[in-house]
Amino acid sequence: MPETAQQDRKEDSTLKTIATHTHTKDRALRARASAVIPGGMYGHQNVGAMPEGFPQFLERGRGSRIWDVDGNEYIDFMCSYGPIVLGHAHPKVDAAAAAQQAEADCQNSPSSRIVELAELLVATIPHADWATFAKNGTDATTWCLMVARAATGRRKVLAAKGAYHGAAPWCNPRPNGTTPEDRANLLYYSYNNLQSVEAALEAAGDDTAGIIVSPFRHDAGFDQELVDPAFARGLRAICDRTGAALILDDVRAGFRLDIGGSWETVGVRPDLSAYSKAIANGYALAAVVGADKFREGARQVFNTGSFWFAAASMAASMATITAIKEERAIESMTNAGTLFRDGLAAQAESHGLRIRQTGPVQMPFLTFEDDADFRKALVFTGEAIRRGVYLHPRHNWFLSAALTEDDIAEALEVTDVAFARVRTAFGAD
Amino acid sequence: MPETAQQDRKEDSTLKTIATHTHTKDRALRARASAVIPGGMYGHQNVGAMPEGFPQFLERGRGSRIWDVDGNEYIDFMCSYGPIVLGHAHPKVDAAAAAQQAEADCQNSPSSRIVELAELLVATIPHADWATFAKNGTDATTWCLMVARAATGRRKVLAAKGAYHGAAPWCNPRPNGTTPEDRANLLYYSYNNLQSVEAALEAAGDDTAGIIVSPFRHDAGFDQELVDPAFARGLRAICDRTGAALILDDVRAGFRLDIGGSWETVGVRPDLSAYSKAIANGYALAAVVGADKFREGARQVFNTGSFWFAAASMAASMATITAIKEERAIESMTNAGTLFRDGLAAQAESHGLRIRQTGPVQMPFLTFEDDADFRKALVFTGEAIRRGVYLHPRHNWFLSAALTEDDIAEALEVTDVAFARVRTAFGAD
Repeated sequence: MPETAQQDRKEDSTLKTIATHTHTKDRALRARASAVIPGGMYGHQNVGAMPEGFPQFLERGRGSRIWDVDGNEYIDFMCSYGPIVLGHAHPKVDAAAAAQQAEADCQNSPSSRIVELAELLVATIPHADWATFAKNGTDATTWCLMVARAATGRRKVLAAKGAYHGAAPWCNPRPNGTTPEDRANLLYYSYNNLQSVEAALEAAGDDTAGIIVSPFRHDAGFDQELVDPAFARGLRAICDRTGAALILDDVRAGFRLDIGGSWETVGVRPDLSAYSKAIANGYALAAVVGADKFREGARQVFNTGSFWFAAASMAASMATITAIKEERAIESMTNAGTLFRDGLAAQAESHGLRIRQTGPVQMPFLTFEDDADFRKALVFTGEAIRRGVYLHPRHNWFLSAALTEDDIAEALEVTDVAFARVRTAFGAD
Repeated sequence: MPETAQQDRKEDSTLKTIATHTHTKDRALRARASAVIPGGMYGHQNVGAMPEGFPQFLERGRGSRIWDVDGNEYIDFMCSYGPIVLGHAHPKVDAAAAAQQAEADCQNSPSSRIVELAELLVATIPHADWATFAKNGTDATTWCLMVARAATGRRKVLAAKGAYHGAAPWCNPRPNGTTPEDRANLLYYSYNNLQSVEAALEAAGDDTAGIIVSPFRHDAGFDQELVDPAFARGLRAICDRTGAALILDDVRAGFRLDIGGSWETVGVRPDLSAYSKAIANGYALAAVVGADKFREGARQVFNTGSFWFAAASMAASMATITAIKEERAIESMTNAGTLFRDGLAAQAESHGLRIRQTGPVQMPFLTFEDDADFRKALVFTGEAIRRGVYLHPRHNWFLSAALTEDDIAEALEVTDVAFARVRTAFGAD
């Protein structure tokens, strides 16, 4: 028996989740997909660059658990890259959506759900005086820029270098298919660096319509960085001084850090906030909320889509926001995330590995020392997925309120083995 | 009794649908909406500029019928501005979506539905060798431009003056919130005018990445215009000659004119087609299908959204496309549309009114002689909505396969009264 197989046996014997995963159906589907989908799959859910063992096709979700097409079960630490905040198939959310769907979803006009949801967002988010709805996070961020431009009559928008604000040509992370003109009115600053904002502002002259910013730095592939409260306050002061719109891109973090908006944690209120992902626990919806100062600008911009007034995802959103409050979901995610972070830190230390855990515990990310090429991260997450724990090597993770202390304990059993494998492959730090 | 009230009584006595509509709940909701939604409502479903009697809020849909929040019933000739092609709450479509939703919708990866749906589109649409998915029609049209640019390494795209391709900054029909740079790489031609295309092509030099075109001219507020087959063939020849992508924006017309793509009717096959609206009978989904020649370009462009891989709307789409075929939905819409068009023509003539009925009968539009300001159209559709027939004064209508001959007969009873009112108000032509 080769050494690693012996090790496998010894380590896995202590685990409830045994590495017996097969991926026969997944492989067959990949072959079919390669014929009818460019590259076989596309976008952030393409697992082509992920370690072996990551399924390309999933079949089912319940609470903290997901199953792939071959029936393998995983504890889910990605939550569909954010949308699932209460756990998969949350009964109250699904019941609200189904009840609405049975009456009507996409009609010639909105249902009364649009009014009720706008009222709920305005009541929940302190800086919100009004709300509008769309389908994608990119719809929301793009429309924020348009509102800022319409309201100010200016063109330039300041954005952080490397930040992700969507996949439209103005913000797509790859150059392919975009033109220089798509970004002609963008200037870039460095996150948490006010001096760089002032420099961009000066370059824009008196033509700055807005500043878009994420609640914390969560650029994929990098350690996360919490916002410096002084930076957030500085942006607020600059926008107050210049009349530019302070735009918070809360698409990724919204409803995970603070129910009132992610910068309530640092006491800074934006003019416009873009939401999507967790707003309806997996149902397709996006929203922009704004302050009265930008209501008239918002009114002026033509803003529409075929499915933007559909009622079922709005009913789901109301049920989601209500459940986040009633079930203390943010507290649950914080507790689970703290347990997980503390456990990972202790394990890494016990294996002699140096790691960095960054970002809020509800949206954690783990990187290894001397691992710019992610080789250690690939081993770590590859060993975890084979044992039923779904983590990501390059992208922040997302916790849901469905994760129990038992789930965390079970996941930590797996990560202990995964750390051991990293230590075996790369040695101690 | 005033003259019009007498007339009302006489005319309405022949109608099953009596004008007893009240809008108490609708008015109360509008008041609430004005506090929390900019302008009270926004986008194409804002009824602010519609005749009195149009409800802002709808509650229920079944087959060819819809109900507003005050319980008023209407025969639906707008079909949610296109998405509803089989009728509201189609049992097979809703069952397919609900069954999928019960397993999973938005996950860390797509379900096998994405492969099955891509295969179905490739099997159904002759020019399609592959497919990708998104949420909005605008996602699909925007991505077609990106693919054309990535594939050709060129920047310029030719579009028809006044055509609607979505609400993103590059195509938004209003200037508010957009910048000149958003359209720096667009050149415009006149629909059905090949000479104007050649002129735009010359202006673009050797930098033309693609030509985007609607299957027929359906600019809102104008008589519709069917495509001249020689124009379609001419565009195909230009694209073959130059290597530019021929992009068919089939978002509005797709699955109503021809199951294989709207230009199958004229025998011209595009390189890329954008779909949305009717693709899933009301569930939020968009797709791009393309020829092998553009597969590599498609692979290169980063294309993603939080909900773009969600399975329920894909299951709905497969059920929709299958039902369109099995139930001969396009034939049904054509029959109903022909009956309606013939009936309207006879009625207008009998009232001494000159009208124009344009576009395919499945997506008809009616305008009055000497009515550039739509005053006659407003009276006509205002009288119709009060009597339970939902038409639109400025936008093409959409028929569904749920419309029966009895529905058309009932609607024609109403339009006969509405024409009489136009004649009373404006005189004969």
